[in-house]
Amino acid sequence: MSEPEIELPAGFSFSSVAAGIKPSGRPDLALISCCPGTKAAAVFTQNQVVAAPVEVARAALSRSHGAIRTVIINSGNANCATGLPGLRACREVCAEAARLIGVKPEQVFPSSTGIIGVPLPIEKILAALPSLKVQQRADKDSVREFARTIMTTDTHPKLAWRRVSDSKAACRILGVAKGSGMIHPKLATMLVYLFTDAKFNPGVLKTMLREVCNQTFNCISIDGDTSTNDTVLLMASGKMGLSRRGKSEFEKALLGVCESLSQQIVSDGEGVQHVICLNIEGARTGKEAMQLARAIAHSPLVKTAWAGADPNWGRILAACGNSGVRLSPGKVDIFIGGQMVCRRGQASAFNERKAHEHLSQPNCEVRVRVGLGRHQLRFYTTDLSAEYVRINAEYST
Amino acid sequence: MSEPEIELPAGFSFSSVAAGIKPSGRPDLALISCCPGTKAAAVFTQNQVVAAPVEVARAALSRSHGAIRTVIINSGNANCATGLPGLRACREVCAEAARLIGVKPEQVFPSSTGIIGVPLPIEKILAALPSLKVQQRADKDSVREFARTIMTTDTHPKLAWRRVSDSKAACRILGVAKGSGMIHPKLATMLVYLFTDAKFNPGVLKTMLREVCNQTFNCISIDGDTSTNDTVLLMASGKMGLSRRGKSEFEKALLGVCESLSQQIVSDGEGVQHVICLNIEGARTGKEAMQLARAIAHSPLVKTAWAGADPNWGRILAACGNSGVRLSPGKVDIFIGGQMVCRRGQASAFNERKAHEHLSQPNCEVRVRVGLGRHQLRFYTTDLSAEYVRINAEYST
Repeated sequence: MSEPEIELPAGFSFSSVAAGIKPSGRPDLALISCCPGTKAAAVFTQNQVVAAPVEVARAALSRSHGAIRTVIINSGNANCATGLPGLRACREVCAEAARLIGVKPEQVFPSSTGIIGVPLPIEKILAALPSLKVQQRADKDSVREFARTIMTTDTHPKLAWRRVSDSKAACRILGVAKGSGMIHPKLATMLVYLFTDAKFNPGVLKTMLREVCNQTFNCISIDGDTSTNDTVLLMASGKMGLSRRGKSEFEKALLGVCESLSQQIVSDGEGVQHVICLNIEGARTGKEAMQLARAIAHSPLVKTAWAGADPNWGRILAACGNSGVRLSPGKVDIFIGGQMVCRRGQASAFNERKAHEHLSQPNCEVRVRVGLGRHQLRFYTTDLSAEYVRINAEYST
Repeated sequence: MSEPEIELPAGFSFSSVAAGIKPSGRPDLALISCCPGTKAAAVFTQNQVVAAPVEVARAALSRSHGAIRTVIINSGNANCATGLPGLRACREVCAEAARLIGVKPEQVFPSSTGIIGVPLPIEKILAALPSLKVQQRADKDSVREFARTIMTTDTHPKLAWRRVSDSKAACRILGVAKGSGMIHPKLATMLVYLFTDAKFNPGVLKTMLREVCNQTFNCISIDGDTSTNDTVLLMASGKMGLSRRGKSEFEKALLGVCESLSQQIVSDGEGVQHVICLNIEGARTGKEAMQLARAIAHSPLVKTAWAGADPNWGRILAACGNSGVRLSPGKVDIFIGGQMVCRRGQASAFNERKAHEHLSQPNCEVRVRVGLGRHQLRFYTTDLSAEYVRINAEYST
């Protein structure tokens, strides 16, 4: 899926340090510099409870008209449910980073991930900024180190990249993500940073990013909980000008990078044994296809059956019946690994051993055909294992 | 909560047999006879995928105008996702029971619980009907045996009763329920049968039953999945006439019986270690209070924190933010066991050991005050334990 060697888009440099926010002493603070002329767009969590950095980042993008020059990210603390002091702390970090780098405060984009409800250790962050400034590098190692720095309970860093060429130029897209890990059973946070040296204005970036997110990061679910800090940021340094035709190639490549990252996030979900590729077919609208996918992906009964590699189609059918979508149960067909297990809402004779074997694999396919229309959707989700419960039930506060 | 000795309402008799539907050989078929003049009302699952007996029972109630004379209930098979043959099988059972007992087919109310997608073993049921007819009894033992017969993975039978007296008469209410157990990890089904010798017409029964269900069985959740077979049936033999004033006493007693049964169902949920009494306060409307309660009760992150007795209020706050209710996070207060843990959306200094100890008990209390209006709701839910996953992940098909 990804080429063996990372290709770095021109115009970005990276540095990471251990500022002492994570109790483990691992790197937990990263700084990204973007060259002058960089344009950015972002999408944020839809949770109404949002962390301070999400509020500050949203305002920064708006005030700078997308002209972001610096990104400052910490792991180990979400700076969420920290009230006005949390907002002030975030703004102070941005102001100090702006002063050091020589950009405007509204050109600094902040992100945080980690424990919620705990004050941000601002002194540690301010103390680490100068060394972050001097260590800036634009090489593969610094990117890999950045990917490790934003991890919480992720078991490995998540990267994906593509190259887009046309008659005029060749540009690159690089994506770095952290997934639904949690830091000492607090909130999962998804952070995604997308870098490219292509040239687009913020409006175009925003439209492309929304479209791509709807097809990728919005089509994954591990436990149905939406974090307070989720952020996807796309930055374009503008070093390479593609032709008009190059734009659609670029969008395809961006989709490829985001697809790869979203699948990496799902596979690295807590306690995940099986990733399920859920294909919804025959929905009336895209929205109803999404409702069906989410109802299935959020049903504890469906997810625990998957944990046991149990081809229990009755639970899938019942989850569809609970989705809120107006349904004709007698039109529903369900397939597991290509095998029809439910035909028109009833048991279909099938090879149970084969279905069980299919669901015993790390990557499985479930197809639900509801026979109501022409809309379809591909959604990635996971089983719900006893290990997930163990990870999240560990007493920590 | 319940008196030590069951008091049986006049006008009902019971019998149970092992018809061979359950592989265990335990009793799995029960018959209830209601005296002439009995009026009934029922509420059913809101899942769009409904089992054959739900369809047949709904039609019977409508055609007989609530004049139910016989209830036939099997465990071990849900007769769901069985298509037209399933409907025919259910109707045949009802017709044969009607013929044997000497009532009309539309006066027979069927229920099933157990495996879905498997044809109903109709021959076994028809063969057992004659012995069910001759064994009819109106005593405590036959009621207790009935309560055991409808169990699937319930660990104990569930009964509750009350007596209502006024100047004119004394009547009794008896409730029998089975909970969210599952038969060989298929669907949970809640079946509740309520008997009384008070006299009410079906319209009044229906109104009372809806109101009481909204305050009890609709305010509990174990895993957020709604079964295809859920049924609550209220039968009034009319042997005792209460005064006009007696009606409100009766409603209170009915509420008491249903509260007791709903709490018994939650406590006996699969893998449950803690029952959480969730109080939502300050909601704009009753509907929004319910949306908030469900968002909290269905969040795997909240439920796994409870499994670890972790006073993790951040997950509760984030679940509120995801509920779809328009919220002011800065107005939200959260209490655990009477102790304030989150004040106006931020951490409040609290005794963590005390909060952990409170959540370590079998019965815990969590209060969420959203500060938007005057509506409140009490909702009972559970933790999500590794044991729940084990029970439901066991490969069975």
